Amino acid sequence: MTFCRRCGHAVEQRVPPMEDRPRAVCPHCGYIDYVNPINVVGTVPVWHDDDGGPPRILLCRRAIEPRRGYWTLPAGFLEVGETAAEGAERETREEAGARVELDGLFAVLDAVHVRQVHLFYRARLLDLDLAPGPETIENALVGLDEIPWRDLAFRSVRRVLEDWVADHRRGSFEIHTGSVDRSR
Amino acid sequence: MTFCRRCGHAVEQRVPPMEDRPRAVCPHCGYIDYVNPINVVGTVPVWHDDDGGPPRILLCRRAIEPRRGYWTLPAGFLEVGETAAEGAERETREEAGARVELDGLFAVLDAVHVRQVHLFYRARLLDLDLAPGPETIENALVGLDEIPWRDLAFRSVRRVLEDWVADHRRGSFEIHTGSVDRSR
Repeated sequence: MTFCRRCGHAVEQRVPPMEDRPRAVCPHCGYIDYVNPINVVGTVPVWHDDDGGPPRILLCRRAIEPRRGYWTLPAGFLEVGETAAEGAERETREEAGARVELDGLFAVLDAVHVRQVHLFYRARLLDLDLAPGPETIENALVGLDEIPWRDLAFRSVRRVLEDWVADHRRGSFEIHTGSVDRSR
Repeated sequence: MTFCRRCGHAVEQRVPPMEDRPRAVCPHCGYIDYVNPINVVGTVPVWHDDDGGPPRILLCRRAIEPRRGYWTLPAGFLEVGETAAEGAERETREEAGARVELDGLFAVLDAVHVRQVHLFYRARLLDLDLAPGPETIENALVGLDEIPWRDLAFRSVRRVLEDWVADHRRGSFEIHTGSVDRSR
């Protein structure tokens, strides 16, 4: 049983007028509690040495569930009051202490099974003053041949890293779209 | 005053442990009622005559508030259980009775002031069997010089149409990103 946010009454699952699918509807005050997918926003933060050496990517080892102990890109839920790019930059700062400059949208990935749409941005690290936040055990800067493919936290992170490495090797970046559901 | 979805108790605005901003937290059961931006998904549905004439774009005149009577592209809230592309296709069917084939993502626009991120797809109309849904007064197929720029419902719709027309004239389509807030 769930309750109405507006009046505290128990809600019912029913199809509201003018609609075609059941929602949580309050029989007392009529409030409809819509549940919609939300956005996860993150970055692929890259460090380029001054001597023109190969790029390294900033990863974070998760200190929290789900997938505690596994490696991820800095990412989290988009908050009210910020653009997706601002959210991605904020998450990068919170999870790795990292200051980045964004280079544009890189991936839009549906994660239907968890009711999310993931938006990732390409980013350049401005310095190497990193400091893991409370949700991160440790940060690492990894070369493209050092990515811990078997210990990545999420399918969207794997997909984004695969696409980033492929684009880098080809020498041109595009915006990637797709789904990271098992069934699709 | 608002109430807890899980237990029906009155909630308080306070900063939860491990977080940095106030949320609606239930003092009785501890449930945190997160509020995050949600996605609006839509299409730019285009009809190409067999004789290679200029394209026409399908618009819908809104039968509901906000912006009743103004013209829009088919779009609406992404639902749980569908990809963004599937949602865009569904909204096009619901609001115009139109069957489309999607040609890929076209725009990702932040609408921070209304707590939304808008995702628009390029689409080809498969036939002209249109039927306005309950949220639509009428449909229209307009040439690129017939777009009712002064009577468009939303800034994101204007932006998407401007970008589509510009890309069409240039002969190449890309994915557009940006913000449709007044202040940005």
